[in-house]
Amino acid sequence: MKSAITFLIAARRCEIRELEQLALSCDLVQAVSELVHLLQSERGTASLHLASPDARFDAQYASHVSATQAAEAAVCQFLDGLAPDPGPASAGGARLLTRIAMALHALAGLPELRAQVSAHPCAAAEATQRYTRIVSALLALVFEAADIAVDPAVSRLLVSMFNLMQGKEFAGQERAAGAVAFATGGVDAGTAQTLAGLIEAQEQCLHRFEEFGSDACLRQWRALEAVMPLTELERFRRRLMSSVSGAGLDRAMADAWFACCSQRLDLIHRAEVHLAQGLKDECARRIAGVRAELGDQEGLLVTLSSVEPEMQALQRTADAVDGQFASSVGGAGMTGAVVAQALGPRLTRSIVDTLQAQSRRLQQVSDELTAVRAALDERKFVERAKGLLMAHHGVGEDEAYRLLRQTAMNQGRRLVDVARALLDMSDLLPPKA
Amino acid sequence: MKSAITFLIAARRCEIRELEQLALSCDLVQAVSELVHLLQSERGTASLHLASPDARFDAQYASHVSATQAAEAAVCQFLDGLAPDPGPASAGGARLLTRIAMALHALAGLPELRAQVSAHPCAAAEATQRYTRIVSALLALVFEAADIAVDPAVSRLLVSMFNLMQGKEFAGQERAAGAVAFATGGVDAGTAQTLAGLIEAQEQCLHRFEEFGSDACLRQWRALEAVMPLTELERFRRRLMSSVSGAGLDRAMADAWFACCSQRLDLIHRAEVHLAQGLKDECARRIAGVRAELGDQEGLLVTLSSVEPEMQALQRTADAVDGQFASSVGGAGMTGAVVAQALGPRLTRSIVDTLQAQSRRLQQVSDELTAVRAALDERKFVERAKGLLMAHHGVGEDEAYRLLRQTAMNQGRRLVDVARALLDMSDLLPPKA
Repeated sequence: MKSAITFLIAARRCEIRELEQLALSCDLVQAVSELVHLLQSERGTASLHLASPDARFDAQYASHVSATQAAEAAVCQFLDGLAPDPGPASAGGARLLTRIAMALHALAGLPELRAQVSAHPCAAAEATQRYTRIVSALLALVFEAADIAVDPAVSRLLVSMFNLMQGKEFAGQERAAGAVAFATGGVDAGTAQTLAGLIEAQEQCLHRFEEFGSDACLRQWRALEAVMPLTELERFRRRLMSSVSGAGLDRAMADAWFACCSQRLDLIHRAEVHLAQGLKDECARRIAGVRAELGDQEGLLVTLSSVEPEMQALQRTADAVDGQFASSVGGAGMTGAVVAQALGPRLTRSIVDTLQAQSRRLQQVSDELTAVRAALDERKFVERAKGLLMAHHGVGEDEAYRLLRQTAMNQGRRLVDVARALLDMSDLLPPKA
Repeated sequence: MKSAITFLIAARRCEIRELEQLALSCDLVQAVSELVHLLQSERGTASLHLASPDARFDAQYASHVSATQAAEAAVCQFLDGLAPDPGPASAGGARLLTRIAMALHALAGLPELRAQVSAHPCAAAEATQRYTRIVSALLALVFEAADIAVDPAVSRLLVSMFNLMQGKEFAGQERAAGAVAFATGGVDAGTAQTLAGLIEAQEQCLHRFEEFGSDACLRQWRALEAVMPLTELERFRRRLMSSVSGAGLDRAMADAWFACCSQRLDLIHRAEVHLAQGLKDECARRIAGVRAELGDQEGLLVTLSSVEPEMQALQRTADAVDGQFASSVGGAGMTGAVVAQALGPRLTRSIVDTLQAQSRRLQQVSDELTAVRAALDERKFVERAKGLLMAHHGVGEDEAYRLLRQTAMNQGRRLVDVARALLDMSDLLPPKA
């Protein structure tokens, strides 16, 4: 018969496997962060390439494409390296695998998009939007990894990482939109509103990144911020915003704008690289910690096994003494009492303490995870509200988001509050078209 | 390179493995429900045995013990049949395994308890309390199984099952307390309060059981209720309660009380047996459902593979046509376009639809699980508040519960509200003794 200790050890092994799965997710997030960074560069160049009448961005675009392809190959290689049928049904495994499937499906559209960008048969705005959708599928994967992580400390870092990546993506969208504006010499009211929204969203994400980041990451972030061209960026932003009121933009500035934004994006990416390393270290630390505790518990099991012959000898004696009573009523009754004495209260005590400590720890882990995951609720509500609008209004994702944002601006409410109000009212919406 | 479809199928397989794990948990719950039922009978007989001066319960106790031992062996056999190192790190696996370890540790104390009951060196109240702690460890296992279940429909049934088992346990405690009262000829104020609390708690649990049970289970429950000796039970309860005010109890009624309660407990157990079967059926139904969908998706994969030679031929042509352009800029660019054409919008559409449907479904599953699990929060708050009191007051579990209940009664508030208030104030509590 398996003992309590056997299952306690199985529980620990189960935790280790969960953490190992989590470490794999973190490796994937790292590879995805690299790919997203290069896709963002490619998108920026593509928008310049399409907006500009001359062909001076051709070579630049081609070199970006091959860099992205290398990062894409790295992600695919990682995915190919996963077990053919990823064995363990880890927590939320199906959700992460579905996000991977969706990201791969989005990536499969890249070759066609690149062909169109190269041959100029699509507009800059359309190309940007299509790149953005691919990046968005990759970010959704990182979001899911954060949401299903089973360790609070790692989960916090993944929430921090997701927000850094999402903030950087808003910065990348700002670069692309600004590049089009400079290349075409002006900004219309709609673009100005988009730019303002992107700047605000960046700040929110970077705030969340700082809130959930480790102290080490934050120190590195401060150092990186110190060398970011933030003053220059603000000056460009002011120029863009004032061009709405008729002031034309100097087309020659497009390169400088792009370079300034790119410098910042590269520095944000440096922070991502630090954070990804921090994630790997944290996973390794947690796995080592549980392994060490498991070692101690296996020691306990060895102690128990070593007294087993003694226990069996005692049992034989006890059975003989208990005689008919033991066999008819108490079973191994008195034997149990004798064995408990033989084991000594110290050993029994240490089993009880270990069991209770493990139970309390798992409860605490569960509570902390719930708290960290609450930080992800905001995006979930917005995503669900978008889905609702898409289904009921028969519009696309971008239009659904625009509708939500517009309503929030008109009513002076936060986006998430409008999303929640909509979801709460969903039963009152007209049936699907 | 693995495709989106490969990961979609992996996601489905992952779901199937999770459901198979869940089916195993349900089998365990079924075996545990059997064991708890017999432990409850054994506890009832033990309390009569210890309270009664004569030896007329000896044979009855012995026969209960051997019945329980058989059920215990069935649970252990099931646990021994689990993979030696339960492979998959299923959701919450570590938590369930820890609960199993705690239940096994509690069960290991049975032989000693039985020996003491048989030899009469412990009081009826103490024996009852020790049996109750063992049952409580088994119920905590069922609770955990309900809390970590990954399928909303199965989760609902497990919540229903837990509440039925917990309600029955309160009924079993009532039987034991009443048996002592009848055997000793009277009830003190404390026992009367305990009995009233047990009756109220039973009603709450049975209400929850009905709320989360399936229609089929409820129909069976109504039929069972119709044959329960409820009028007789209420008459006995009235006698017990009025004995506080001095009216002595007829000791000869002990047998009739025990028989009446036992009849009801046996009928409640019949409902448990139905519900356990319902759980097995539901698991099987869900697994069959996901398997069928997986079959469809694998069909899609076969379709994709069958057009692969055609795709590769197209790619070679396209590469030749695209020439230098394809290799320098667009990569497999034009090829991608051609392939997309070759696959036809219908196939691409069906992949997108499948991916989106899967993503929506998993989101919905996650939402529904959150809603069902909220029904378990109440007990979690009470358990945590108890833990807090145990740590800060240095008292045992029973005393901590009594303190909570007393506070709730004094303040006319619900137990769960007092527990939450205590947890909210935990930072203000004095440091641990």
